[in-house]
Amino acid sequence: MAHTPRHNAKPYPVSGGWHEGDHPGQRQFYTFATERPFSLEGGSSLTNVTVAYETWGTLNSDASNAILVCHAWTGDSHAAGSAGPGHASPGWWEGVIGPGHSIDTNKYFVVCANVLGGCQGSTGPSSLHPIDGKPYGRRFPVVTIRDMVRAQAHLADSLGIASWRAVVGGSMGGMQALEWAITFPNRVRSLVAIATTMEASAQQIAWGAIGRRALVMDPAYNDGNYYDAPEDEGPWTGLSIARMIAQVTFRTDTQFNEKFGRNLRDQHFGPDGIDLFSRFDVEGYLDHHGDKLVRRFDANSYLYIGKAMDLHDVGRGRGGTAAAMSRIKAPTLTVAIDSDILYPAYQQRAIHEALTTKDPRNKHVEIRSVEGHDGFLLEILPINHCISEFFASTEGV
Amino acid sequence: MAHTPRHNAKPYPVSGGWHEGDHPGQRQFYTFATERPFSLEGGSSLTNVTVAYETWGTLNSDASNAILVCHAWTGDSHAAGSAGPGHASPGWWEGVIGPGHSIDTNKYFVVCANVLGGCQGSTGPSSLHPIDGKPYGRRFPVVTIRDMVRAQAHLADSLGIASWRAVVGGSMGGMQALEWAITFPNRVRSLVAIATTMEASAQQIAWGAIGRRALVMDPAYNDGNYYDAPEDEGPWTGLSIARMIAQVTFRTDTQFNEKFGRNLRDQHFGPDGIDLFSRFDVEGYLDHHGDKLVRRFDANSYLYIGKAMDLHDVGRGRGGTAAAMSRIKAPTLTVAIDSDILYPAYQQRAIHEALTTKDPRNKHVEIRSVEGHDGFLLEILPINHCISEFFASTEGV
Repeated sequence: MAHTPRHNAKPYPVSGGWHEGDHPGQRQFYTFATERPFSLEGGSSLTNVTVAYETWGTLNSDASNAILVCHAWTGDSHAAGSAGPGHASPGWWEGVIGPGHSIDTNKYFVVCANVLGGCQGSTGPSSLHPIDGKPYGRRFPVVTIRDMVRAQAHLADSLGIASWRAVVGGSMGGMQALEWAITFPNRVRSLVAIATTMEASAQQIAWGAIGRRALVMDPAYNDGNYYDAPEDEGPWTGLSIARMIAQVTFRTDTQFNEKFGRNLRDQHFGPDGIDLFSRFDVEGYLDHHGDKLVRRFDANSYLYIGKAMDLHDVGRGRGGTAAAMSRIKAPTLTVAIDSDILYPAYQQRAIHEALTTKDPRNKHVEIRSVEGHDGFLLEILPINHCISEFFASTEGV
Repeated sequence: MAHTPRHNAKPYPVSGGWHEGDHPGQRQFYTFATERPFSLEGGSSLTNVTVAYETWGTLNSDASNAILVCHAWTGDSHAAGSAGPGHASPGWWEGVIGPGHSIDTNKYFVVCANVLGGCQGSTGPSSLHPIDGKPYGRRFPVVTIRDMVRAQAHLADSLGIASWRAVVGGSMGGMQALEWAITFPNRVRSLVAIATTMEASAQQIAWGAIGRRALVMDPAYNDGNYYDAPEDEGPWTGLSIARMIAQVTFRTDTQFNEKFGRNLRDQHFGPDGIDLFSRFDVEGYLDHHGDKLVRRFDANSYLYIGKAMDLHDVGRGRGGTAAAMSRIKAPTLTVAIDSDILYPAYQQRAIHEALTTKDPRNKHVEIRSVEGHDGFLLEILPINHCISEFFASTEGV
């Protein structure tokens, strides 16, 4: 397995590097009052916290048209727009966010922020520790989904957004959306939670934890101190293997059968017999996805964000799931992908059923798809359709 | 992650070590004519091939009551009987094989052989290469399920068994059972294929391949040359992680929810914040299963047997699956576990539907269970029930 070295292995510059400004879809940075500690749920705190974010559309005069879109595990603030400097790929929800789409940038002011703990501009393990100016690495404290959400609340304050027209997210983005509606019930006027859960299940924890074990087994991980390593000597193999595990859980048996079947990537039967590491087509696909992530993502961020998802439990410290869910005031759309093996459809039905408002605008949709969990990124048509309908029914919230 | 060193890290002695003899359930060894090469499907060959096996019951005078039981990935010949020297655990199918059970040792002569490529007495990567007397390691040729079956055919010849009353297996054991009935249609008088498939699917290949990538990333794997390493320095972390991946696919989300939920194994919230590697209960379970395998299984065997499963395709070189399946003459019982996520129930239905004999004794059973793939080991009652019924309907084959 040859891995292309990760391109952005060095700590992300907190300012500079990209053209900053207020152009729609360009990355901007909000840094909290520098010396004021930001307390974390785990008990420790961070200073000099920066949140990187992008916006699309125009905030109206009473700041009532703002929508927060929350990203998933390896996503970032680039939810919409083309590839460009700092963005290896087009926006991860291109086609859902934009003029005329369900999250209509002609109508709404859309915000997406890189999560706390991330590696695309927000403070995370690859950021520089204010004390010694070196990357935090494993000195970075474990953050939770609630910490991510409270950091976003600081950003909302700075943008003058008292409440969101909607908070929207899939997968880990849905975890944040739920936490927003529970932590700040008066700041969320409608909620869209897609392919997500009220609490990480044992199987979800298992997949994440195995990936983390594989990553730290890579000797190049070096207990998290790899930022000074030459570009081709970071824990890229470990990160790649962790990603491969996730990648299989993001898709489905059916989709793999249709796309790969038993096609070969490499010749298997040669003059010297069979090569133990000759690859089937699906292995080439996994290598590709592993390599792709390695080029754009920080290994420590992968670990920390994964742990935050495992810790996700809306009921923690709130008297349980039911009590937590009863705090939600917002009309809520829940969306399931029927073939999702990682966040099975029962988890989104359970969210819908746990809503105590019994608001007639609450809606649960199950999308039929072979795409599995990645359906929240790929099934643009039905997702646009149900978000549009929900936004129409919640007009004027 | 502390791992107990593997206890049988040294190459398995081909003879000696355990009490040999003809006592039921004790391990015996059959070595092919020493200098005669055993040709492999991949094109190379092996000499000095040994098959380790155990037997239960008594072969009758016309050798018509012999049943072959085939084991799965990390199984071995100890299908029934108590733990003892060389057997860390009781037989893996204790309760299915034995006096009065469906595979009734009062009535049948039952044989189970360690597969070629294995590490419990049959020739495999940890065996000594006849040329230099050192373990094969990665010099061992890749073997296929068909090679395993042809090695078992040599054993059958040596035991004077012209044909089997039944060939029975689950998971990889089912792959062998199918290959037996296709390669030697006149030597298999009835067939039981449980939780198995006619060809490994892309998702099955993906899970296996990721595990192998994790294993070889362990620096202690050392390209397969770890047999001389001190007991605590083999690739045990890598093997353990590969096993963890498999372990999740062997069980189900439902069973994990019931058994572990979000219970903690370690304290998560301490005075210094949250520990990134504090474990949920399910992680402790995975660590346990990883460690357990490491103590009894050879890492190279794990790789080779996994590759053999990926290569499993009854249609290869036979004009496709349908043509291959049309060779089967034996009445066939197929058994599915409805919650199996690794070998989903559609794969066993497909076997049943591909049988061209349309023998009225062909039977397909789908067991309702939360146990997932491991149901073939755990759902003793329904498995005994359907095998007993099938054996009754095929009496006198």
